[in-house]
Amino acid sequence: MNIRFYNARILPFATNDTAIIEGELWTKDDRILLVGDPNGVTPPAFDREIDCRGNLLLPGFKNAHTHSAMTFLRSFADDKPLQQWLHEDCFPMEAHLTGDDIYDLTKLAVLEYVSGGITAAFDMYYHVDRIAECARDTGFRFAICGAANDYGGTAESTRRDYEMLNAFDPLVSCRIGFHAEYTTSEPLLKDLAAMAQDLKAPVFTHLSETSTEVEDCIDRTGMSPLAYLDSLGMFRYGGGAFHMVFPMEGDFEILKARGMYVCTNAGSNVKLSSGIAPIESYYDAGIPVALGTDGPASNNCLDFFREMFLVSGLQKLTVGAAAADAIKVLHSACSVGAKMMGLDDCDCLAPGKQADLIMLDLHMPNMQPLNNIAKNVVYSGSKANVALTMVAGRILYERGTYAIGVDPEAVYAKANEIIARIRKAEGR
Amino acid sequence: MNIRFYNARILPFATNDTAIIEGELWTKDDRILLVGDPNGVTPPAFDREIDCRGNLLLPGFKNAHTHSAMTFLRSFADDKPLQQWLHEDCFPMEAHLTGDDIYDLTKLAVLEYVSGGITAAFDMYYHVDRIAECARDTGFRFAICGAANDYGGTAESTRRDYEMLNAFDPLVSCRIGFHAEYTTSEPLLKDLAAMAQDLKAPVFTHLSETSTEVEDCIDRTGMSPLAYLDSLGMFRYGGGAFHMVFPMEGDFEILKARGMYVCTNAGSNVKLSSGIAPIESYYDAGIPVALGTDGPASNNCLDFFREMFLVSGLQKLTVGAAAADAIKVLHSACSVGAKMMGLDDCDCLAPGKQADLIMLDLHMPNMQPLNNIAKNVVYSGSKANVALTMVAGRILYERGTYAIGVDPEAVYAKANEIIARIRKAEGR
Repeated sequence: MNIRFYNARILPFATNDTAIIEGELWTKDDRILLVGDPNGVTPPAFDREIDCRGNLLLPGFKNAHTHSAMTFLRSFADDKPLQQWLHEDCFPMEAHLTGDDIYDLTKLAVLEYVSGGITAAFDMYYHVDRIAECARDTGFRFAICGAANDYGGTAESTRRDYEMLNAFDPLVSCRIGFHAEYTTSEPLLKDLAAMAQDLKAPVFTHLSETSTEVEDCIDRTGMSPLAYLDSLGMFRYGGGAFHMVFPMEGDFEILKARGMYVCTNAGSNVKLSSGIAPIESYYDAGIPVALGTDGPASNNCLDFFREMFLVSGLQKLTVGAAAADAIKVLHSACSVGAKMMGLDDCDCLAPGKQADLIMLDLHMPNMQPLNNIAKNVVYSGSKANVALTMVAGRILYERGTYAIGVDPEAVYAKANEIIARIRKAEGR
Repeated sequence: MNIRFYNARILPFATNDTAIIEGELWTKDDRILLVGDPNGVTPPAFDREIDCRGNLLLPGFKNAHTHSAMTFLRSFADDKPLQQWLHEDCFPMEAHLTGDDIYDLTKLAVLEYVSGGITAAFDMYYHVDRIAECARDTGFRFAICGAANDYGGTAESTRRDYEMLNAFDPLVSCRIGFHAEYTTSEPLLKDLAAMAQDLKAPVFTHLSETSTEVEDCIDRTGMSPLAYLDSLGMFRYGGGAFHMVFPMEGDFEILKARGMYVCTNAGSNVKLSSGIAPIESYYDAGIPVALGTDGPASNNCLDFFREMFLVSGLQKLTVGAAAADAIKVLHSACSVGAKMMGLDDCDCLAPGKQADLIMLDLHMPNMQPLNNIAKNVVYSGSKANVALTMVAGRILYERGTYAIGVDPEAVYAKANEIIARIRKAEGR
């Protein structure tokens, strides 16, 4: 499909200039062909021409940390702190999940992603082959993160998945990862570090999400979780920390030295009573910050508008009203997340890049007047403003209608069946 | 209009039972005729019958503190703390507003209210006659709160407005109010207190929004703002405090003794870096808590889904994961706000009550599976779920279409004209 968007406002994030331009955007197959002024450029044969009526095109939101298939536990496990929530609710229920369940439950998340303007997700979960199938079958883009830990997964299986998934489909990629320091014994951590070094690959993991996790690690190793993992050579080729709510002295230096990313999950950290990550300090230190929803069992929704306001608002609350302004947070949401996930072709709107983009409807009351469009998106935007979501040149969502190859009602029915079956098995 | 809703799920908030029932809801003119089981009840002649397809009916959200016409400053004045924001941005720009401006800018807010499921707003602003006209012309319900202070308004003018507005239109009501302790001299406060006592009326005001405000009042009077105002007899007949972020020792007792309400404005308090109100403590003390968006110059949107998640999430963050659970917050949003505003007929869905209600679409991915519908609304809901908004028996919004007597595009154009004119006058 070749598509022409015209009468558009565009925030490309292709340069450091964050001004909004007016003009056109052309896609050809899965790539962007032109952004801005079409003068003098020969147009391809367009399959469709879309009058944007002044609405905003921007790179899609990149959900840089999630557990998509946990949709089945949405509003099931709530109002508990992390460890209690994990051990009482998540682990026992998750033990019943089959590969088919994960395929179906991930589709429910995809529906939510595309209707909320998310064009790629960095997914950490089990049955990774079924997540990859879900990407191929729905047209959604998944970077899959390894989740090895003492209850499942080895360096070898992680490497096999890495190789299999990176060859599976253009919409699928894989990064080396493991669940967390506190769930992974040192021999496995060392194996993973050696394997990542062999591949010259960055490594991603849950890190410093709660104060308890950090204190326990210091008690055991004398080091912060990041310093301990780094001492094992884990981040020789970079990587990223999911959450990073409680950095200790020295952690900033390690993040900088290793070229690591932080992915913040504000909604989840708030709801599980974990804490507020020092995002403004990461910005100040030049550490790249991405945003994630975390899984829908904790957050409970996969909504980047909520995340963006929370990331900005919580910094304003704790640092001051000038902190984490709209354009910084929007750049994190659209662009930095792509780089963290290794999706270097999805970080901005420019010729040759992947056609992963969204259109936000500015003809809605929460977007008026047009004093500052980027601020409107972050400070007053909502999912209701998402008019269109395109991944790899295919429109997967447009004004309430989905094109992911399945009837949403069938996905909802499956999700309700799965949770009913597991509740019955668990007697709750 | 008489309307039949059938195949509905209904959360009436009519009793302490917060279970969701299945059945029908009938409206006759501006009132609710039946909720639940229609067996044996003679139906009126229906003008319309709506198949709810299992979607959720609940009382509309009551926005218990706002400054609607400040829509013109949305995304204009941001990233500054309260006093700087007020004096550098709000006051100079507001000085240019005419009555016509306020009428038009309030309509922009009404569009946002109804598309977000808000059915009534407690509005504190100037040119109250024009807000009342806006209510009458759009069909939206406004309770208007006096805003007297040293820069405008007296006890006499407040009383005149009170009497005029309460006789104006069934959609309009008025409550005695003034701007804040820190903007109102003692002689005027005493006049207002005497007038309110004469009317046996409750009084509403901004109270303890920032720590500076509280400290300054203690320096001047030796008392907290609430204790000081109470010492003047201000709350003899009750009333309410907007914000109440920083209660001092003794304030809880005064709130209880006077039967006062607290309206919390979490989005605004976060964005202006004011602080987190101790909502769970108010709940524990039995002090009724309502929710408000505050004006769109500070928040910047008029979105109760964002407010509900923030109110719950910020309590979880500061008190613990069990705090401010979904059903408590939803009750505050739908029901307590109505009582605070004096809209005793709008607090729940029951025969004889005003037909102020909303329908939320559960056939959307963020509402699935249906593990717990009230949690889904508060923890994962968004404006995109609002399928229908009815005020006084009239459908003002339905799936993207507005029926408030004006073309939304004309409202947007006016708002952009107004801010352009004022920016030009101010040279900014």
